[in-house]
Formats: sequence, structure tokens, C-alpha cells
Amino acid sequence: MADPAFKVTPWKVEGKIDYEALERQFGIKPIGDDLLKRIEKHTGPLHWLLRRKIVFAQRELAWLLDEYEKGNKFYLYTGIAPSGPMHLGHLLPFIFTQWLQEKFGVEVLIQIPDEEKYWARQNLGMELDEYHKLAEDAALNIAAVGFDPKKTRIFIDTDYAKTLYKQAVRVAGRLTFSTIKDAFGVGNDTNIGWIFYTSMQAVPAFLKSVEEGRNVPCLIPLGVDQDVHFRVARDVIGKLGYYKPAIMHNMFLPSLSGEAKMSASEKLNTIYLNDGEQEVVKKVNRALTGQQSTAALQKLHGGDPDKCMVCQYYRFLFEPDDKKLDKILESERKGTILAGEHKADLAKRINGFLELHRKRREKAAKEIDKFMVKD
Amino acid sequence: MADPAFKVTPWKVEGKIDYEALERQFGIKPIGDDLLKRIEKHTGPLHWLLRRKIVFAQRELAWLLDEYEKGNKFYLYTGIAPSGPMHLGHLLPFIFTQWLQEKFGVEVLIQIPDEEKYWARQNLGMELDEYHKLAEDAALNIAAVGFDPKKTRIFIDTDYAKTLYKQAVRVAGRLTFSTIKDAFGVGNDTNIGWIFYTSMQAVPAFLKSVEEGRNVPCLIPLGVDQDVHFRVARDVIGKLGYYKPAIMHNMFLPSLSGEAKMSASEKLNTIYLNDGEQEVVKKVNRALTGQQSTAALQKLHGGDPDKCMVCQYYRFLFEPDDKKLDKILESERKGTILAGEHKADLAKRINGFLELHRKRREKAAKEIDKFMVKD
Repeated sequence: MADPAFKVTPWKVEGKIDYEALERQFGIKPIGDDLLKRIEKHTGPLHWLLRRKIVFAQRELAWLLDEYEKGNKFYLYTGIAPSGPMHLGHLLPFIFTQWLQEKFGVEVLIQIPDEEKYWARQNLGMELDEYHKLAEDAALNIAAVGFDPKKTRIFIDTDYAKTLYKQAVRVAGRLTFSTIKDAFGVGNDTNIGWIFYTSMQAVPAFLKSVEEGRNVPCLIPLGVDQDVHFRVARDVIGKLGYYKPAIMHNMFLPSLSGEAKMSASEKLNTIYLNDGEQEVVKKVNRALTGQQSTAALQKLHGGDPDKCMVCQYYRFLFEPDDKKLDKILESERKGTILAGEHKADLAKRINGFLELHRKRREKAAKEIDKFMVKD
Repeated sequence: MADPAFKVTPWKVEGKIDYEALERQFGIKPIGDDLLKRIEKHTGPLHWLLRRKIVFAQRELAWLLDEYEKGNKFYLYTGIAPSGPMHLGHLLPFIFTQWLQEKFGVEVLIQIPDEEKYWARQNLGMELDEYHKLAEDAALNIAAVGFDPKKTRIFIDTDYAKTLYKQAVRVAGRLTFSTIKDAFGVGNDTNIGWIFYTSMQAVPAFLKSVEEGRNVPCLIPLGVDQDVHFRVARDVIGKLGYYKPAIMHNMFLPSLSGEAKMSASEKLNTIYLNDGEQEVVKKVNRALTGQQSTAALQKLHGGDPDKCMVCQYYRFLFEPDDKKLDKILESERKGTILAGEHKADLAKRINGFLELHRKRREKAAKEIDKFMVKD
């Protein structure tokens, strides 16, 4: 059942999210089967995040594909504003973006705004330098996902500010405080950095057009909480004479406790990319499952895969094969697998994933200069 | 830049009552004889702008001189936000700053914020690039004033944004919309660039401290209308752990019609640095003088130098010698000079000044790279 109090903003995601209600609220459209077929024509077999409608909504994707089919290649833009070490949920849009890059053979811009959380969380009193360190750490995790260094630019805002600020100036001139207030719910006591910030996030959505002196379509895969930035910026970008970016929205990886979004405030139920093996086992053991109160009852009645976070983790990230996933969900539903075994399997899978990620991260660290751009 | 709410002609500010009104409003202090003597000890004969109290007010100048006398050298920071071609009034703070540089042997930072008027005058619809061109033009006029290229950095904001933005982020995080609203009178319909802007203007006031990793005192000579930026920023700069800048305020060069400030909206009564000889003659001929309605009456009763713009132009810029100035004012007061001759003399003086300025500007153009810094 949808929680009427659910809330999705770039700074807070609370309650059980009704994604259909979000579509109405944000004015975004589902990614229907027609669009999936059009994508498949170019990519071959669809990514599981598309097949399972975890990447569930879009803006102007049909237009983007029209352009692509006319020979007008798009570029991809995504990013992350670090507030602490990265967790599994953070990787999701990058995994999807990397797949799009590979299948469409396109460029990617990745923005890491170190100033964003500095402004949004002034009350924590952390220095800008600390956010910069988190940003550098994030860059390694992102590069580890497998982007093509020849076609990927990762930048930290304060290191790329000459490029970004000049264009942000043009966006900021066309956004009033009223607009920001209505869109982000900021108030008179909000700092002027936070008020200004969305102009910086808008820039990479038209930067290639500025650089090339012609309109280049842009596709932004993002967590649905970030949509507000582009609800605000798309009009401005249009007024500046550039194509409005197309967008694809993904759902949030829930926390192991079943909270709407894996988040830093849910530390014990969130798997960080630097969690050790035993930590993962411990966290997964605490996961919410859809199972009955006793093994006997579970064997008799079975569980509910929709409520089982173990099943959901397989669905979101850890079982790309739909048939194998069906088997896992089926065993949960029929009660042929018990919580202990179910969790142990997932923990093993996550640990395998993290081990591979850390190896890739080490490799990425050696070639990170190929990815990072600075002014 | 928003004009401050008070309206004042420069010589009215001289008067005690009006000075006190200004002091109450801005919380600034006069530059008393004690301070003038302390400055003179280091500089030798005072600049006419100080002797005539056109540079009339200050913040924490005594502290700055204390530091200087302890061997803790300050640096100077000033700037201009171009909205069109520069006029005589614009040069005033630069002429004074150049003198300070020469006499104290200190570094100067000069900020030319191309984005400032872009934001403040969005309604004019001018492109950011046009403001950048005006900024480049301003840089030549500034360099022509005679700054030491070895000790002077001139920068245009969008070309130096990597350096500036990173520090502006720290300022912006500590300023709320309320503060900006109260100080600048902005509202809900103000664009978020304009709201953010003061964080950029604050940066050069502590940039040397950031660069040197130790606290370096800063002195900002500026037109009194700019004080509001630092009323807002000084506290924040203190909270960031840097010295609050000292400030010296100058009055405005009035327009030839006697308006409080020479300005672009008073084009016909404003002398631009690129005005031709005949244009200057024509404009000066239209100047407001304190003279009587006929030559006969003028010879009989004399005029009022305080109301005579010709006299005021000599006082502000065109007669550095106090004795000679006194003679000019005296001849006006006694009616021994008539308007026509009086104006012709001034026009000649202004044209001589502009001719020299344009020669210096040509020379400056050849070595402008020694002054300009970019990221």
C-alpha cells in the first residue's frame, strides 16, 4: 500500500514510494513497451534494469531516439553529490549509464558537485575540502563501473569551475528565487549557495552544445529524486537555445530494512562499497524478508517476494538472468527456501560483487587521470 | 549594483549632519586628521583625494596601519563591474588605489565581474559575452592608470572562476537569502545569480590569505555604494578565520549636470574615456555652474563653487595643486571668471587628461598580459 506521506526530494526520500503517483506529480511518463522495443533495436537484449522497469520513467525519450535514428548522436550525463562513502544504491544509475554508453557508443559526462552537499548540509559544519575528498573517492568508484576512458569525462565542480561557472551564470540569470523556492522548498533562511546550486547542475546538460557550437542531444539517467533540477532547468536550457535534455528515471534501491532508499542515516541497513565481508554478512542477516514467523509456517504458506529485501536485491542488482531470478522469487513464494539460506546466498553474491568492484577500483585508480578533467 | 537607498551629493556628505546620517546607515567612520597623519608618515605628501576628503570614510584603517607598522604588509583590492564604456568617475578609485600601491609598495588585486551586471540587468537582454568584452575594455583603462605589472593581478570573473568559485562556495554557505534580501533589497522575483553574486565579490578580500596559508591584511578602496557588499561579507570572512578587510570609501564624481553620480543614464552629462575632443567641449559647455544669470550679475555677486560642476571637476580630478585649486574656486566665488572661459579651461584640461590616458591605454594594451590572470 502506498504511504500518503511519502516524500521524494533531492535531499530527502521518505516513506513507501508510490512511483505512479510520482509520475503524475513530476509530469514524467512511464517507459512503455514501445520505447523498450525501440531501444532494443539499437542495443540488442535490454539491460535488466529496463526489463524489470527499475528504470521506469522518462522525459522525451522518443524524441531522443528520433534524433539518434536520424544520425544525431546524443551524449549521456549523470552524476552524484557525495555526502559520505558510496553505497550500492549509488552505483545503480552508473551501472545503467555505462551500459548505455557501451551499447550506443556515446560520450558520458559525470558531474561530482563537491559544493552541493556542503551547501545543503551546512549544519554539519564539514569543510569544503572534506567534500572534495569524498568526491575524489566517488570518482574511483564510478570509473570502476567500466566506463570507456576515451569517451568519459568525470569532473569535480570546484576543479572544473571555470568551464561550469560561465555557463551556470547564464542559467542563474533566468531563474528567480520564487522558482527555486517552489521547486525545492527552500526558504528565507536557506543559504544562497544552495539557492544558486541548481544552475551548476544544469550545465552539463547543454555543455556539449556550447563546446561544439551546434545542438547535441543529451540523455540524463538519474534517480527520480533528481528530476526536480531538470524540471526547473529544461525550460531555461530551451530559452538559451539548446535542446532540452531527455531523461530516464530509476527507482531507489531500498535499504535492507525495507526503507524507501538506502541512505547514510540507515547505516546499519545499507551496504557500503567498502564494507568488509563479515559486515555484509551481518547486515544481510538483519534484512527484512517476506517470510513467515517460523520455518514450519514458511514451508507451508511461503513468503512474499515483494516484501522480501533479499529478493529485491537480487532483482535490482544481483541476478541479471530473468529465469534465475524467477526461480529465486518462486522459491521464496513457495517456501522452499528458508531465510537463513536465502540470506547467506545473497551475502555471498554481494561479497563477490564487492570484491570484483574493489579490484576494478584499484585498476581505475591507476588510470583515473584518463577520466578526470580539470580546468 | 543596486544604488544604496540614501541619496547624496558628494559635498553634502562633507557636512557634519549628512556624514552622521551616513555613519548611522552604514556604520562607517570618517578619515580623521589622526589617520591622515599616520598615512602621511608612510606615504609623504597626501594624495589630493585624501587631503580634500573625497576619500572620506573608512573601516578599520587604524588596525590596518597598526599591522603595517608591525611589518605585516597589506594588499589592496578593488574592482569595477562594467555595464558600458567607462567614464571619468569610474577611474577615481583606481587612481587612488594606484597611488596607495606606489606609496606602500604593495600588491593589488582587481576584480572585473563580467557576470555582475549580466545578472543585475537581465532585463536588458545583453549576452554574457558582451559583458566580457566590456570587461576586457575596462582592463585596459585600469592598466593605463599606471599600476605596477609585477604587483598587480587583474581578473575577469568568468576567466578566473576556478580560483574564485571555490572560495565563493565557502562564503555563500554562510549567507542566507534573508541577509541578502535585507542588505540589497532583492526580492522573490530576483534571479538567483544576483542573489549569489556577493559571494564572488567577497573572495578577493581574503584570497591572498588562502594562497599564502596565513592571514594577510587587505585594504579595499571603493565607491561608498559598494560598502554594502562588505558589510555583508566581513562577518563571514571573519567566521572563515581570515582578517576582515579594511575599507576606504570615496565619494562619487558628480555628473556635469550636478546629479549625485556620473552614470550611464546621464550620458549627455557624463564624460567617457573614449569621448572625442569636441564631445568633451560640448558636454562641458552644458555643465551646471554656480554662476549668476548674466555676466554683469556674476561680476557683481560672484558664484557658488560648491554648486559649480566646473569647480568640482577641478577639485575631484583636474587640479592636484591645492593653491591653484583655491585660486580657481576664488575666481568663481568673486565673479572674476565667467562661465565661458571657466568651461573652456576645464574642457582643455579634460581633453589633455584623456589624450594622455589614451596613450597610456595603447601602451597598456601591449603589456596587458602582464596584468591579466586566468585559470
